[in-house]
Amino acid sequence: MVELKGDERLDYLLAEELRIIQSPSVFAFSLDAVLLSKFVYVPIQKGTLIDLCSGNGVVPLFLSTRTKGNITGVEIQERLFDMACRSIEYNQLESRINMIHGDIKEIASQIGHGKFDVVTCNPPYFPTPSQEEINKNEHLAYARHEILCTLEDAIKASSQLVRAGGKVAFVHRPGRLMDIVSLMRKYKLEPKKIQFVYPKQGKEANTLLVEATKNGSPDLKILPPLYVYTDNNEYTDEVKRILYNE
Amino acid sequence: MVELKGDERLDYLLAEELRIIQSPSVFAFSLDAVLLSKFVYVPIQKGTLIDLCSGNGVVPLFLSTRTKGNITGVEIQERLFDMACRSIEYNQLESRINMIHGDIKEIASQIGHGKFDVVTCNPPYFPTPSQEEINKNEHLAYARHEILCTLEDAIKASSQLVRAGGKVAFVHRPGRLMDIVSLMRKYKLEPKKIQFVYPKQGKEANTLLVEATKNGSPDLKILPPLYVYTDNNEYTDEVKRILYNE
Repeated sequence: MVELKGDERLDYLLAEELRIIQSPSVFAFSLDAVLLSKFVYVPIQKGTLIDLCSGNGVVPLFLSTRTKGNITGVEIQERLFDMACRSIEYNQLESRINMIHGDIKEIASQIGHGKFDVVTCNPPYFPTPSQEEINKNEHLAYARHEILCTLEDAIKASSQLVRAGGKVAFVHRPGRLMDIVSLMRKYKLEPKKIQFVYPKQGKEANTLLVEATKNGSPDLKILPPLYVYTDNNEYTDEVKRILYNE
Repeated sequence: MVELKGDERLDYLLAEELRIIQSPSVFAFSLDAVLLSKFVYVPIQKGTLIDLCSGNGVVPLFLSTRTKGNITGVEIQERLFDMACRSIEYNQLESRINMIHGDIKEIASQIGHGKFDVVTCNPPYFPTPSQEEINKNEHLAYARHEILCTLEDAIKASSQLVRAGGKVAFVHRPGRLMDIVSLMRKYKLEPKKIQFVYPKQGKEANTLLVEATKNGSPDLKILPPLYVYTDNNEYTDEVKRILYNE
């Protein structure tokens, strides 16, 4: 059993493998978070992973199906942190996923530098909105806009948390490619693989997945493109496999 | 009529629209040069374009089919410069294409800064080889390796030559993406569109096309991927259209 608050729902994740608490007015995960969870390298049998800007915990939950390692999630909004904790409990994953209610800018000084094998982050994508927009729905505003955490904050924190040779993976918009790769290099994270996600064939990419190695040497690979929809506006087989673990 | 020297051939370019002098032992153009010529923005009716590291003039020849503007080619190797000049003459394009035998590092101080609407470059891709390799075939070594011209030389020269708001387009290997975009930003060239070229579906990209705007604002688009071969190892329809102007 799980307590659902307000307009929360208990949605399925990965067909019926896991369930996750979502709320249309507070936070619902996007395909991007799922693509990131599938894209990133993970150690299978053991290891330490940390997800920044975790929201309702979608990335830690998804990662728990790919690794037996220990997963930490960090979320600054108490309302989302609470949703994540209840989902983890519902799925009986408390022994493997630990949520921290905190600010990523301070997390490394709290829990230590260079301790993680893998860092993931699906950060807010958009520049700071007007105060009026923030007032309308602060949960969504904080999740989508660079108010509490800029891209540089997220990349700097990732670099502090990951061990030398460890992996850092981000999902973002392709328009920020220049900023992401410049900031990664600034913080000693060398981009090693990039995948662009296209809504369908013949369209420009609308999502960027990038994985870097701390203190890595330059050797970037551009993976085959990933298409989300077919011409008939259905999910492609590749995305179905990722979403439903088919 | 045209004089052919040594093992030179008079090959077709763009079906039978143009002909170009090539030599297996000295220089033969690659698909990359053709993709660059098709990828780059060109002013249709008039304008000034310059191609750096022109080799046997393949990019200027190809561009002449897309624009009525004036095209300059720069090549440092006299043997290749001579091939380019004879091809231009054979195609009766002397009034629209002007080849310069010179070093791109000095070209802006010779012909002026900020005068071109468009700069293209298909630079040498590989780091400097051993002296022994250079001795074996210096023409090919200079065309393929960063001996006479580094990536930074080429990007710096492009930035000097192009006017504010003008376009600079490069083709290179995806492994150099980080270097290209970092160097472009260093020289006030803002990458605006990137296209990755994949040998076939499901493979990693092996070619990168990038176009930047001098003093442009950040707004990068990732164009749909381009595949070169079908699963049957034939050119895709898209590449056939580019190669043969179909």
